Amino acid sequence: MKLEKLVGERFKERPSDCVVDSHAFMVRGGYLKSVANGIFSSYMPLRRVTRKIEQIIREEMDAVDGQEVQFPVVMPASLWRESGRYDSIGKEMARFSDRSGSPMLLGMTHEEAAVHLVREYGQSYLRYPFMIYQIQTKFRDEARPRAGLIRVREFTMKDAYSFHTSQQDLEEYYARCHRAYERVYERVGLPEVISVASDSGMMGGSISHEFMLLTPIGEDSIAICTECDYRANMEAAESIIEPRRDEVSEELVLAHTPNAHTIEEICSFLNTDEKRACKAVVYQKNADDSYIVLFIRGDLEVNETKLTNFLGCDVHPAVITEESGLCAGYIGPMGLPEGLCVLYDRSIQGANNLCCGANQDQHHYTGLDMQRDVPDAEYHDFAKIIEGGICPKCGKPAIEVSRGIEVGNIFQLGTKYTKSMNMTYTDENGELQYPIMGCYGIGVGRLAASVCEAYHDQYGPIWPISVAPWQVHICAMRVDEEDVRACADKLYADLQSLGIEVIYDDRKVSAGAMFSDADLLGVPVRIIVSPRNLKEGIVEIVARDKSFSYKEKTDEAAQKAAELVRSLLEKINAES
Amino acid sequence: MKLEKLVGERFKERPSDCVVDSHAFMVRGGYLKSVANGIFSSYMPLRRVTRKIEQIIREEMDAVDGQEVQFPVVMPASLWRESGRYDSIGKEMARFSDRSGSPMLLGMTHEEAAVHLVREYGQSYLRYPFMIYQIQTKFRDEARPRAGLIRVREFTMKDAYSFHTSQQDLEEYYARCHRAYERVYERVGLPEVISVASDSGMMGGSISHEFMLLTPIGEDSIAICTECDYRANMEAAESIIEPRRDEVSEELVLAHTPNAHTIEEICSFLNTDEKRACKAVVYQKNADDSYIVLFIRGDLEVNETKLTNFLGCDVHPAVITEESGLCAGYIGPMGLPEGLCVLYDRSIQGANNLCCGANQDQHHYTGLDMQRDVPDAEYHDFAKIIEGGICPKCGKPAIEVSRGIEVGNIFQLGTKYTKSMNMTYTDENGELQYPIMGCYGIGVGRLAASVCEAYHDQYGPIWPISVAPWQVHICAMRVDEEDVRACADKLYADLQSLGIEVIYDDRKVSAGAMFSDADLLGVPVRIIVSPRNLKEGIVEIVARDKSFSYKEKTDEAAQKAAELVRSLLEKINAES
Repeated sequence: MKLEKLVGERFKERPSDCVVDSHAFMVRGGYLKSVANGIFSSYMPLRRVTRKIEQIIREEMDAVDGQEVQFPVVMPASLWRESGRYDSIGKEMARFSDRSGSPMLLGMTHEEAAVHLVREYGQSYLRYPFMIYQIQTKFRDEARPRAGLIRVREFTMKDAYSFHTSQQDLEEYYARCHRAYERVYERVGLPEVISVASDSGMMGGSISHEFMLLTPIGEDSIAICTECDYRANMEAAESIIEPRRDEVSEELVLAHTPNAHTIEEICSFLNTDEKRACKAVVYQKNADDSYIVLFIRGDLEVNETKLTNFLGCDVHPAVITEESGLCAGYIGPMGLPEGLCVLYDRSIQGANNLCCGANQDQHHYTGLDMQRDVPDAEYHDFAKIIEGGICPKCGKPAIEVSRGIEVGNIFQLGTKYTKSMNMTYTDENGELQYPIMGCYGIGVGRLAASVCEAYHDQYGPIWPISVAPWQVHICAMRVDEEDVRACADKLYADLQSLGIEVIYDDRKVSAGAMFSDADLLGVPVRIIVSPRNLKEGIVEIVARDKSFSYKEKTDEAAQKAAELVRSLLEKINAES
Repeated sequence: MKLEKLVGERFKERPSDCVVDSHAFMVRGGYLKSVANGIFSSYMPLRRVTRKIEQIIREEMDAVDGQEVQFPVVMPASLWRESGRYDSIGKEMARFSDRSGSPMLLGMTHEEAAVHLVREYGQSYLRYPFMIYQIQTKFRDEARPRAGLIRVREFTMKDAYSFHTSQQDLEEYYARCHRAYERVYERVGLPEVISVASDSGMMGGSISHEFMLLTPIGEDSIAICTECDYRANMEAAESIIEPRRDEVSEELVLAHTPNAHTIEEICSFLNTDEKRACKAVVYQKNADDSYIVLFIRGDLEVNETKLTNFLGCDVHPAVITEESGLCAGYIGPMGLPEGLCVLYDRSIQGANNLCCGANQDQHHYTGLDMQRDVPDAEYHDFAKIIEGGICPKCGKPAIEVSRGIEVGNIFQLGTKYTKSMNMTYTDENGELQYPIMGCYGIGVGRLAASVCEAYHDQYGPIWPISVAPWQVHICAMRVDEEDVRACADKLYADLQSLGIEVIYDDRKVSAGAMFSDADLLGVPVRIIVSPRNLKEGIVEIVARDKSFSYKEKTDEAAQKAAELVRSLLEKINAES
């Protein structure tokens, strides 16, 4: 491919709407163009990167006995009504009516389609286990697309679905898939991706993992233990709080706390630590706006995912009205209106000598003893794990919180979909059973952007050889000089006949323009043909990441570059 | 791949809803499953066929300097409003509102997205010509999906868009693409596909070709001259009628024609030939229901595509009300109500001694002379070409009409999209010009089904080696016998290590069940390992299409089969 003919524009200025580097480089390098909010067209360089990623994923899915299939993008609502998700999923699902008025939807995931495809096939235990996967376009109407390809509305995803006759079989296969995912990240050049325990969200099921690339621009927060191998998404991380109880319980005393509303104001006014406060956090259920009052230690925050999972329904932060009977800013566990949903976090279990709201305007209590004063409270884990918190696995106070991009996820789904969609098989004893499912997703575009986030310098992406749009980039300076033209043309032809993917820049532009375009395309091996070099009978072969730089005789350069490409490819595959 | 593990069910009975063989075999062979009307999921065998077709198309598009890109499935209405097609396309376009209420649509073709992608890039004449293409899912809400993958609502399509600075450059590139298309059909095993001139329909532009596989189950009618190379879709074929005028014009006479309504009834009643009738065919414009009366020779039919193109708007067969002033069954060119749109087909130009309606109940005229009686008539071509009709190219009465499946199309679009979407470039003289576009489409699934239509026997598809789901199918009979198991397992392993794609049937089923499954999978090379053969120290290598059958020594069979696969692949590529 001649660079001169490459459709797409490259430019220097960082667009003001690009908040992350991968987005900026992909716009500046002619990789993509926005069509609508969170919807992009890809130019050839990006399409070549995503096709290589797709092929790596395909090979690894085939290696764990996956069968590539294809589900439709457009599905009838009736299929999603079987699982109940047509109604339970909100605005993120795009819906329309077809010409006959039948309600249709755009697939954002394909559990229903997977069950539909194998429902008849999987009627005997003899046919298990099996796994089917596809690489297909999905649409999810995100409220806040951001960061280029990191969070979009339309995306290409590999989604896989496995079917099993026992939890043990699922777990064994799940472990194989976990390893296959690690190989995918290693092969695309991101061996640093880690897996973390995660919340299963709308997918159902219990055990699940997310694969995370740690980076400050990530949207997810991840709790990592520095003392053991515990890693979990904040949403899923259990919060462990050491019980704290003074030997002597003070008396409960009503205190006048004028103009103290926030936990900071109150603790400052009462001259006490936030860890000695029983803080009220109020939510309302989305369905009926009924109130939920949750008490938690003053220094902690509520993990809304845990709350939602506990309640089995969605909630939002409350708007406290006069009719609610709640006294905003002064809410405490004693003397609350009847009939409220009241929850207690484990962080205040057994604690005493706490301050709390008195459910009267401008008044708090001090000396609250949960055991003595709220004897009927039940305690659950609703708190966000904190930096320096106790590791749920090794018990040491060694939790660090990092940001990460989720570049894949795997779920043990259980029988949620097979039960709701009535998929059964006959077991060895002639009894009907529901198959147990796993599902496994990777977003292709987000993975491409993540590679770019992890590997770039200030000038552009540094693509790993396995996913680079091309393998070798020839920069021919001064092609108006005959020997430059001849040498570069020959290199281009020779490399192609050696099976190397080459982008060839023979434009009559300055060295600066040529190199900045090459930096934006991020091809790992660069060959520079210039009059000065040719005087010495050599060309330069340099790495985009500056890890090597060779001077090679012109007639050996193609062979040498091809060997270099092969050894880089072998290296990245050997590491996986 | 072991057949035992292949997800999908195969069975004997032809499903009653399958009207074409490819559909029946794909259902019976576990290739696809219907999800909704015209929407399918693909199992692994079909996905392997379509991926191979996609790769062949990709290689041929790359060979004509195409750059693979990707456009979105979901596009904003605003983009399609630029070209005017958001309003001009009807119910076949799926539309929905996103969560913010913005109108969106599902792409059924991507001219708008293509212009959007290159509008900035293509601002200088130096950047032309270029071609971009994608292989992507499309949705077209067909009123009548039918025949399995032949006419669906959701499909995968390769669509390509080229941009040029002159009509000549477009034409040269168009010819290259035409040849690339021929190579695609040759390489997928359909060298018999022909190209025919076609109507451009909603795509705009003038010159276009369709690639047709001739088959009785095709939806299109194609006019083919048996004397020259003229071939055209019926929709586009010019109808040539030799002028017929008797030397003596009879007088115009009013005839009472009670209860004669149809052209047959009238001609029979008047004892004349249908070729001597001036028939009225009445339409209404879709937009305002205004009437169009079209006069044509009695034995001919109206080509509604020509009529629509002439009028520039869509029409439907008329419902003739009393208010219309038309006298249904007795409509003729003389004495029509004022203000009607009246059209004349060339088939009656200059004709005399015709019968026609008299615009009075139960009356016709005889002796109509178009020159004398309707002197102001203008004549255009509105007639369908007929079997035995005159070839518009060589002038001989040698037209045959065949049925065909359209397996691809190419269009010279002109500046329809660049003008409407204001894409310009600066030419050599510094003047702004609109680029000239071509576009080029192939439906992947329909092509797969067409191969199956063309190549099957009563037992199943006979896939050409280039698109077959696997290259070799091992049938191991009686694997409970140790030597069969050992021989077949070794063959399976050896063939795979030789890089051959193998499906291996080692189930303990009858030979009949094994062979009927193999027939349904249609793999071109079959190896039969059986106790009887092994006694002679051989295995059988047979062709699915019965074109060869060898007995090979067991230890040479893998090598022989691999050579066979390679030679079949070379043969199909050599022919293209």
